[in-house]
Amino acid sequence: MLNAMTSKLQSLNNIRVVLCQTSHPGNIGAAARAMKTMGLSRLYLVQPKKFPHAEATALATGAADLLDSAVVCETLEQALIGCAEVVGLSARKRQLSHELVSAREAAERCAQLAATEQVALVFGTEMSGLSNAELDLCQLLAMIPTNPDFSSLNVAAAVQVMTYEMRMALLGSDVNDTSSNAIPLATSDDVEGFYKHLEETLVGIGFLNPAEPKRLMQRVRRIYARARLEKEEVNILRGILKLTQNPRPPEKI
Amino acid sequence: MLNAMTSKLQSLNNIRVVLCQTSHPGNIGAAARAMKTMGLSRLYLVQPKKFPHAEATALATGAADLLDSAVVCETLEQALIGCAEVVGLSARKRQLSHELVSAREAAERCAQLAATEQVALVFGTEMSGLSNAELDLCQLLAMIPTNPDFSSLNVAAAVQVMTYEMRMALLGSDVNDTSSNAIPLATSDDVEGFYKHLEETLVGIGFLNPAEPKRLMQRVRRIYARARLEKEEVNILRGILKLTQNPRPPEKI
Repeated sequence: MLNAMTSKLQSLNNIRVVLCQTSHPGNIGAAARAMKTMGLSRLYLVQPKKFPHAEATALATGAADLLDSAVVCETLEQALIGCAEVVGLSARKRQLSHELVSAREAAERCAQLAATEQVALVFGTEMSGLSNAELDLCQLLAMIPTNPDFSSLNVAAAVQVMTYEMRMALLGSDVNDTSSNAIPLATSDDVEGFYKHLEETLVGIGFLNPAEPKRLMQRVRRIYARARLEKEEVNILRGILKLTQNPRPPEKI
Repeated sequence: MLNAMTSKLQSLNNIRVVLCQTSHPGNIGAAARAMKTMGLSRLYLVQPKKFPHAEATALATGAADLLDSAVVCETLEQALIGCAEVVGLSARKRQLSHELVSAREAAERCAQLAATEQVALVFGTEMSGLSNAELDLCQLLAMIPTNPDFSSLNVAAAVQVMTYEMRMALLGSDVNDTSSNAIPLATSDDVEGFYKHLEETLVGIGFLNPAEPKRLMQRVRRIYARARLEKEEVNILRGILKLTQNPRPPEKI
């Protein structure tokens, strides 16, 4: 299981992030950090305005290694050498007939490919995104759905979302596998024992009239059923019931 | 179709983003920008270190209106008043038994609720995330899957991913089906009132030693947090506490 997961995520090594003519070095640093949090490491910079730069390093925090190994290119073509799939990120619909899909859909398609092929995710400038000439080098256009009244996603934020979608696509259905924090759940009989004890106690304090119980126990059971009690929690709740039945005098505390 | 979509996205107005004790004002600005790109507008700041601040405004770019209308609070409790669902973002698994789901799963659940209820997404500090006391106020923990070797997601980047998932969930699911949550949920303040009453009662019966409370209240809170209490259920539970404190003599039943 663990091995299968690791090998899936190894596909992230086949995915490069290409930033075109980025103006602000801080955005390069923040993009490197975003990539590394999602397990990507291969950063390509096409004609960055200022690089290397202290601001890039500052914003990369623990991802400065990605800046050190970044490949600086003169042209987008150079940055794409060896790539079987090139995805351009676009903030808006383009006139030309590129295939346009959501970031999620693009990530799902790339996840398949990246097992064996090199994939590039290409991001344009802060001001105007990808130029038409740059788009011509892309095979697929991906759009992150945004507020139509304010679609101005920061470039590092776009890298964050797109690389997050790549990681999610590779994790697939394993994302919700939280089995590693396996805390023993109460069994059905543990829980029934608690309900019985609770009912006795509620009768004892005068909350539940056994002659006219109505649906009170049903209602209370629903609360705990939804909580999906752990073994230890049943013990705590029964401890409370025990002292409700026989309170400990305060002076003994 | 357009109308249906618009009304779904109106749920975004019921979702607040709460940033706790953010150190860097730039992160507040970047978070506001992230929110606005995804169509959210309600920003709450709990004890921000520096706010308002020129750096926040600079990084918000066109989202400065969100900073102007941000609600600054002294405590997280204040920021959560009126919320039926409180989701805490966590970078790591926590020891205690909060329900932990992926950011995507959390967004899908909140998308349903936000049609009719107030929902809060809570983010901790840059250095250490949410404190245990802050987590205690959350009903659900959401985790953005990250590289285990470098999980240091910037707080504004985390806001970007989480609000992106909220928008995706609202675009994708049929939120108009609210048949399942026709029952009014307890708000955060209702539930806090119950916890306070519970704590008093546990001290009263000698179950909880106020001089040495350990993590008992935390553990008990997590049970009820997972149950996601309804308003009526809080009334029932408080009715039980009232009679635990002052049992009704059996002869009167």
